[in-house]
Parts: sequence; C-alpha cells; structure tokens
Amino acid sequence: MTTFPTFSDIEKAHERIRPFIHKTPVLNSQSINRIVGAELFFKCENLQKVGAFKFRGACNSVFSLSDDEARNGVCTHSSGNHAAALALAARMRGIPAYIVMPENAPEIKKAAVAGYGAQITFCTSTLEARESTVRKVAAQTGATEIHPYNNFNVICGQGTAAKELIEEIEMLEVVMSPVGGGGLLSGTAIATKALMPNARVIAGEPAGADDAFRSFYAQTLLPSISPRTIADGLLTSLGSLTFPIILKNVDLIVTVSEDEIVAAMRMIWERMKIIIEPSSAVPFAAILANKLDIKGKRIGIILSGGNVDLGKLPF
Amino acid sequence: MTTFPTFSDIEKAHERIRPFIHKTPVLNSQSINRIVGAELFFKCENLQKVGAFKFRGACNSVFSLSDDEARNGVCTHSSGNHAAALALAARMRGIPAYIVMPENAPEIKKAAVAGYGAQITFCTSTLEARESTVRKVAAQTGATEIHPYNNFNVICGQGTAAKELIEEIEMLEVVMSPVGGGGLLSGTAIATKALMPNARVIAGEPAGADDAFRSFYAQTLLPSISPRTIADGLLTSLGSLTFPIILKNVDLIVTVSEDEIVAAMRMIWERMKIIIEPSSAVPFAAILANKLDIKGKRIGIILSGGNVDLGKLPF
Repeated sequence: MTTFPTFSDIEKAHERIRPFIHKTPVLNSQSINRIVGAELFFKCENLQKVGAFKFRGACNSVFSLSDDEARNGVCTHSSGNHAAALALAARMRGIPAYIVMPENAPEIKKAAVAGYGAQITFCTSTLEARESTVRKVAAQTGATEIHPYNNFNVICGQGTAAKELIEEIEMLEVVMSPVGGGGLLSGTAIATKALMPNARVIAGEPAGADDAFRSFYAQTLLPSISPRTIADGLLTSLGSLTFPIILKNVDLIVTVSEDEIVAAMRMIWERMKIIIEPSSAVPFAAILANKLDIKGKRIGIILSGGNVDLGKLPF
Repeated sequence: MTTFPTFSDIEKAHERIRPFIHKTPVLNSQSINRIVGAELFFKCENLQKVGAFKFRGACNSVFSLSDDEARNGVCTHSSGNHAAALALAARMRGIPAYIVMPENAPEIKKAAVAGYGAQITFCTSTLEARESTVRKVAAQTGATEIHPYNNFNVICGQGTAAKELIEEIEMLEVVMSPVGGGGLLSGTAIATKALMPNARVIAGEPAGADDAFRSFYAQTLLPSISPRTIADGLLTSLGSLTFPIILKNVDLIVTVSEDEIVAAMRMIWERMKIIIEPSSAVPFAAILANKLDIKGKRIGIILSGGNVDLGKLPF
C-alpha cells in the first residue's frame, strides 16, 4: 500500500534541510495589489539555491538516505532544475550525483549541472532512453534514483516552502502554486490544509500542458500527450503519488494561456524587480487574467524558480 | 555654518520612515562568493518601494515637514527615481508633489510619476531651465523644494539602508555603495563609521562620470562636465553638503568601465535572480574586476535600484 506524506513528514523534512536551504523572503507589491484588488504575498523560491524550490526536495531526499545508501550516490534524469538541485545537494553531503541528460539539452544547463560536480551521462531525448539509461546507471553504481516529483521525500521537501510562507504571513485565505508533475503542489496542499484547514489551495497550469486540470476534473490520471508551453518547468504530467494527494487536498485548478503567462511574468519583473521563469508566473497569471474570484483576499503565491536564459526573453 | 547629519539624525529618520518603507532583504549567493573569494551581502534596495533607495530620503524629507510647511506640498526637478519617490511619499502624507521634468524624459518615467499622483511641469532639458522652473513652481505654490541628494533629511533617510544592513549582518568589514550625487554614499558612510568604526567604506563610480573620484583625491569639488555612462543614476556631481561628508568618512573610491558595469549587472541578474539597474552594479563591478583587495572579507553592498527598461537591456 502506498504511504502518503503527512504534515509531520514535512516538519521533519524542514528540520533536516534547514541548515542547507535559504529561508527565502516573502515579497509584496502595493502596485500589484492595487491592480488586482487583493493582497498578494510572493514566496520567492526563485531566490532559493540553484534558483528553484527543487533544491528543497532534492536536499531532503539526499539527507534522508542512510550512510550506507548515501555512499553510492544518487541519480536521476532531468534537463532542468531538479538535476542542478540534486547535484548541489549531493555535493553538500559529499556523495556522487549521476545525472542523465538528453544530448540536446541546452549547453547552459549542462554546464550548470557539471559545475555542481555531477557526473553526466548523455542519452537520446526520448523518455524511454532516459529511463533505461537511469536504470543502467543505477545498476552500475548502486546509486539511489531520486524521481523529480513522484517521490515521498521530494514532496515533503517541496512542502517546506508553503510551511515557511504560512508561518511568516498571518491569515492567508488562499495558497497558490503552479502544477507540472505535482511535487510542489502536493507538498503545498498538505502543508496548507494542515496549518489552515479553511484556506483554499489553488493551482495554476498552462492550457498547453493541462493534464492536471483534466485529470483533476475527470478524477482519473490523464497524462499530457504532446504538451507545449513557454512554462518549460510544467511540461511533465502528474504521477501516481502526486495525483491522489492533489485530488484530496486541492480545491481548484485553473488554466492560463501563453500570452497570460508572459504578461504576468513581465509584470512581476517590472513591478517587483525579481527574475522569475515562466512557470513561476502561472498562478499570478490566473489572477491577473481575472480567472479567480479572490477580490479583497490575502493570497500566498509560491514563485517556483528564476532560471531563464537572458538572451531569449519573451519580451 | 553648515550643519552636517550625525548618526543620531539617521536613527531619528529611521523611526520616522519605518512605517512607510520596506525593510528590504539582504541576499547572498554562494556561487558569487566562490567566484570573488569573499563573502558578499547585498542589501536589496532594488526591492524598495518605487524600486530604489531614493524612497527612504524622500520619505524622511516629506515626513520631517511641519504641518504648516507640508500643506503647500513639495517640489523637485528630476527625471529619475527621486521624482517617483517624492511623489509617492507626498501621496502617503496626503500633500501635493510638484515635479519638474524635461520634455524629453522617457514616457515610462512620466507615466510613473503621474501614476503616483504628482503634478508635472515640463521644461526644456537644460539644468538652468529645470532649476528656474522649480523656483517658479515653488514661488507659485509655496511648496518646499527637496533636492535629490544635497539635502540634510535626504541624506539621513538614505543612511537608513546601511543601518539596516549592519544591524542584520554581523561583523562586516567593508560597506560599499555607488556614488552619483553622494546622498546614498554620505548616509552610508555616516551610519557605517558610527556603528563599526573600523570598517572601511568604499564607493564605486563609473569611469565615465568620475567627478567623485577626482574630487576625493584632489580634495576639492570638481563637477563632471559631460558625464557619459550606462549607469544613468550616477550622472550627477557631488554637492556642497555631500562632498565634505564623503571626504571625511569614505576610505576609497574606485572607478569601473562600462563593460565592467554590464558584466557585473548580468552576473547579479543570472546568479541572484534579481533585477538591478546599471547604477546598482557599480560597486560589485569593482570587486568582480579585481580592483579591490578584499579576499576573504565580509562585505556589505547596497544595491541602489532596479528600474530598467526591459525593452532596452544591454545584453
């Protein structure tokens, strides 16, 4: 039987990772509040180490291993923030990280992962090639595979961002996060419902990668077939562990268009002077595009990351 | 005889403006620390209201006025952050702000100042036209002119940023700020020398607008003739009030090239995920370009602002 994380597991994760993570600031903007007619509190995981909340889950996974398990290192396949996060967490524990990346991953991402001291194995870019390569690496090295989101310890780590937010900002009525594979949303929902049972948990999702939206309302797991969105952190589909958590603890999932994502991203850059990646802008995009009935409410929003290529901005 | 601000005046300013300002976060980056071989702590005034430290000085000036003085409002000439800051501070006190701007100021800046409810008077872009227009506006309205930097209360307000930084981060050995007209540097130097007499105060200045550098080492006020730099907040020259303070309390002024400013700005965007304007990057540029002997030291750096036109980035 599957064991699902509880808030107590998130509390333990927080104790475990506290020495290694940034307690990221919560920022707000009077001018944005005036525009949307609500009080928004942005939890800045774009200012987290490696520039994304992913470091929390990776860190919790790495530091949850026994010494025996840890000795052989950790592995995963990812071309994004999880790869860098796992590489840094492993380096902090002094153990090897083996990262499987598609050959066609951007050079900047390869360099970032290599810069954190990970050993990279390249493969072709299909999901099958990635998964079989990770299995091979794990078999050869004895490394523990850390899935980017469908993993108990990863979900608990991601939940610590919402826990910090709720502990710092009183009386929130809504907590929002983006949803891709669902690791962040799962952890956010568990923490929110435990600390504030009456608060609503709302997720934003790109219309071009709306498997969570469709799965949630169909109440059955419907993976994306060929998702397309500028929010490249949200291309993945929900997993067997994250989906039931979301079904049980999330109140609403709303989708937004690409233009709405870019407009929201630009407003946060311009008004708040922080760099967020498109995925981070998705929940705020739902507010800015007037898709939620939240006038006058106090809303916490998790800004998931800030890793963008400054040479390729959408504005 | 001129009265110079003391640390006690900065403390009073801090009490006065505390309800209105953001206590901005102090951020750091392990990867930047590794690159430069020192521990840097960035005081994020780019995240201050109106996106710049200028709000501190403007706020202190506006809230230092007696009710009788305040009734007639405040005025200044500026096309930059000081105009927006004064407009917002005046709105918070519920008094008029009269801003003189050159006709050719960017539309985005005109809109920002108008958006804060200020009354704008346009003039030609010469310094003479600006100054005579401000005098005329002041005579007509009875408004108090608030100079952007050569003003006692403005300097005290700006000094509160360094005060917060030093109170939050223990054992700093160096505090750095950029220098333009010298308001921020004056306040920073007074606060630093009062709280940490053994710490060094170092300013960064663009080589293309190096009047502070030249004046400091010649020990006589030498205004810039035709300054040119991408750091458009630093085009102004020191004033009669800021220069003696700087001469007495600052240890070192270093200049940096345009390329060094852009490289430093880009590194802060990429590694720290925050938006800073070119002026903010100037002190860090001096470190990144290896112009200072600061290996292993704990250094506080004031990031002055984050107002950039996203459509005109230098990278």
